[in-house]
Amino acid sequence: MAKQRIAIIGAGPSGLAVLRAFESARRKGAEVPELVCYERQSDYGGLWNYTWRTGIDEYGEPVHGSMYRYLWSNGPKECLEFADYGFEEHFGRPIPSYPPRAVLHDYIKGRIEKSGITHYIRLNHTVRWVTYDSDTDKFTLAVKDLTTDNVTNEVFDYVFVACGHYSTPITAQFPGLDKFLGRTMHSHDFRSADEFAGKDVLCVGSSYSSEDIGIQCYKYGAKSVTFSWRTKPMGFKWPETLDERELLVKVEGKKCYFKDGSSKDFDAIVLCTGYANHFPFMEDALRLKSRNRLYPPNLYKGVFWWSNPKCMYIGMQDQYYTFNMFDAEAWYARDVILGKIALPNPGAMMDDIQKWTTMEENVKDAFEAIDFQTEFVRDLIAPTDYPRLDVDEVARMFKVWEHHKSENILTYRDQAFKSTLTGTVAPVHHTPWMKALDDSLETFLNQPNARAAE
Amino acid sequence: MAKQRIAIIGAGPSGLAVLRAFESARRKGAEVPELVCYERQSDYGGLWNYTWRTGIDEYGEPVHGSMYRYLWSNGPKECLEFADYGFEEHFGRPIPSYPPRAVLHDYIKGRIEKSGITHYIRLNHTVRWVTYDSDTDKFTLAVKDLTTDNVTNEVFDYVFVACGHYSTPITAQFPGLDKFLGRTMHSHDFRSADEFAGKDVLCVGSSYSSEDIGIQCYKYGAKSVTFSWRTKPMGFKWPETLDERELLVKVEGKKCYFKDGSSKDFDAIVLCTGYANHFPFMEDALRLKSRNRLYPPNLYKGVFWWSNPKCMYIGMQDQYYTFNMFDAEAWYARDVILGKIALPNPGAMMDDIQKWTTMEENVKDAFEAIDFQTEFVRDLIAPTDYPRLDVDEVARMFKVWEHHKSENILTYRDQAFKSTLTGTVAPVHHTPWMKALDDSLETFLNQPNARAAE
Repeated sequence: MAKQRIAIIGAGPSGLAVLRAFESARRKGAEVPELVCYERQSDYGGLWNYTWRTGIDEYGEPVHGSMYRYLWSNGPKECLEFADYGFEEHFGRPIPSYPPRAVLHDYIKGRIEKSGITHYIRLNHTVRWVTYDSDTDKFTLAVKDLTTDNVTNEVFDYVFVACGHYSTPITAQFPGLDKFLGRTMHSHDFRSADEFAGKDVLCVGSSYSSEDIGIQCYKYGAKSVTFSWRTKPMGFKWPETLDERELLVKVEGKKCYFKDGSSKDFDAIVLCTGYANHFPFMEDALRLKSRNRLYPPNLYKGVFWWSNPKCMYIGMQDQYYTFNMFDAEAWYARDVILGKIALPNPGAMMDDIQKWTTMEENVKDAFEAIDFQTEFVRDLIAPTDYPRLDVDEVARMFKVWEHHKSENILTYRDQAFKSTLTGTVAPVHHTPWMKALDDSLETFLNQPNARAAE
Repeated sequence: MAKQRIAIIGAGPSGLAVLRAFESARRKGAEVPELVCYERQSDYGGLWNYTWRTGIDEYGEPVHGSMYRYLWSNGPKECLEFADYGFEEHFGRPIPSYPPRAVLHDYIKGRIEKSGITHYIRLNHTVRWVTYDSDTDKFTLAVKDLTTDNVTNEVFDYVFVACGHYSTPITAQFPGLDKFLGRTMHSHDFRSADEFAGKDVLCVGSSYSSEDIGIQCYKYGAKSVTFSWRTKPMGFKWPETLDERELLVKVEGKKCYFKDGSSKDFDAIVLCTGYANHFPFMEDALRLKSRNRLYPPNLYKGVFWWSNPKCMYIGMQDQYYTFNMFDAEAWYARDVILGKIALPNPGAMMDDIQKWTTMEENVKDAFEAIDFQTEFVRDLIAPTDYPRLDVDEVARMFKVWEHHKSENILTYRDQAFKSTLTGTVAPVHHTPWMKALDDSLETFLNQPNARAAE
């Protein structure tokens, strides 16, 4: 019998988790199917790559990245640490809890490079169209090699969709926005806060993108930043030039009018209105349709496409947990493919989906959401050989992090946490985040006078 | 036998030409196949629609439009007039030769509305994947209804690709561009010149986009505009705050360095580096691969996909002629489908392709290019019942237009031409283009004191 073939769509943290999971099994002696990982970007690392490009890339494809210059982790690294490859192992010493993009990128790539598994990845390959043939029980992927401009069909036994879901902007429309006399953009296209120095910036939205882009603009010299909320304000203690207003209702010239009756002139409107699940390459019978939620529909264990479990989705949840949750999903999926875990019958799978969906629907606040996802990750890890991740401690840290943010949105990144792997408390960064204008890996790792953590 | 089915991808000027061509035959008594025209935008009119959106649209799809606010026709309307529906017929009176976008949009839509053929168009439908089955001699289109989020397969006997080729940006990379401390964008994302008032703008490129976006920025108050050329400068007589420099070689901070050794600080870099042929929905056996040229490869008569002539491309040429050339192609293709014109055998088709390609390769300058495309259009119209278009007069006008531009790039739009349909000389617009800041249809059509044309 020919070796089975597995396609992995995307070489960001989710796709790389799948590669790492299989490599881990292979090194323990398991017979592993053939793996092919398609990545449309010119490097692996997913959203952690940075590009100056916006809109459409050099190959005519939608730009994947929503990454901006000067992005630092907005959660403690101790909450996302791979259980099988810690930060201390990678960098050879403890580093502060909130690394900038380049440092996280280096960490993600380091695990894969040290595993020697980059050869499975086909960079600059985009998947055009995925179909399933029930006669053969195989998937056909039409894949374009962007560098040669050729599309070929490849046949696989399993497909992992691991392309992320923070790439395709959801935009909002407001009366008059089409004639706004300033710049209009989605946060997906935000690249550099420098451009907004001296400007009056409106961030529409009240979730992570809005919060972070707004304070980035403040940090790099924006004249003012106004946040506009629909459901409820973020409610942080803002410095003087930042404020929150109820929803934008109309635009005239450069003037924006808000639901509270106030108005103000702006130079730029940044629509921080979120991202859509978007899998244009999947035929409808295989295509996940979901808003950003903790438990997307029709995915058994959050992974297996219920009506065809040889099609799997990794990392499609709304996320407190990130890298280590993708690992948990990948390890579980791997063990199903390798026959170590048996999937129940379709009815039992749907019952399980229903159970989790009901639990998710009862989640009332951020703390309960953290608890929900903690149970989700715990459940996945339990039957696998993924190193024991202390999810209770991770959950506790997430809650402390939420408190830090409430206390001071400008200083929460100056806090330090303890690794669940090594027990080491992170050093405090040499420069408070608000004054750390240089976000390079070199500057961040240069910690000669690291203050002791509390 | 079931009625044959024709799919038309795109409802811009090219796709609408196909609908109009078939409707014209139907009204003369011909039996016409079933027509289905898929348009991914929420309105027909193609690039002549305007949207404030950039990058990705409200359905997660790449924004089709490259249209900017304040765009006026950059060639005389008398060169693009439909031979079967003049401007005077549409507007009920003569109008000036260089209309703004909204006026041209109205004209394009008017022909289709008056024909009563909008019901063939399925708005908000994007074509995902087109394949051909040689066993059935049919095409299958996977089509997504963007409003319902459902993809369905539809089977057709013929496919017209009429989606345009000025939508997918070609971008250039320059050392340091990724760290430029201003705004970086492609002309595809240019929307409003107002944003660049008071700014130093660099337009990279020396073709139509660069020329027009640069003078738009000048018109609306940019502090300076620099054009950067690779092959040769545009060479117009620029006003004092506009200049041309040899190719950009590197960027440091806000400073751009040019090949001539000069440097200057900029607030924005606009990559006016052209558009790619991009048909990601076509399987490779059917996919045109071409740069922007007068005679794209493997298209018999510039229309029929040589290896499978039931697949046709409309409007894929580099363009002097536009709307009426799309008509010429559509009328010819229609007559082939209706059996009025027979296609020669594949060898003869390739000989004809070779003949035209050789002619194209000998084109040495803009005037010869105009003559080449004049012959191309003449050849297509001859065997059809498309109204006699006086292509010799159109060619003459294109050459006068080129002279006007050379004389003064800021005033060429103030000139007036004579319609080949009615013989009417256009009135001169009430306001010189450089002072006409309001580009609305209402303002443009309000010509109480129209000066007499020369």
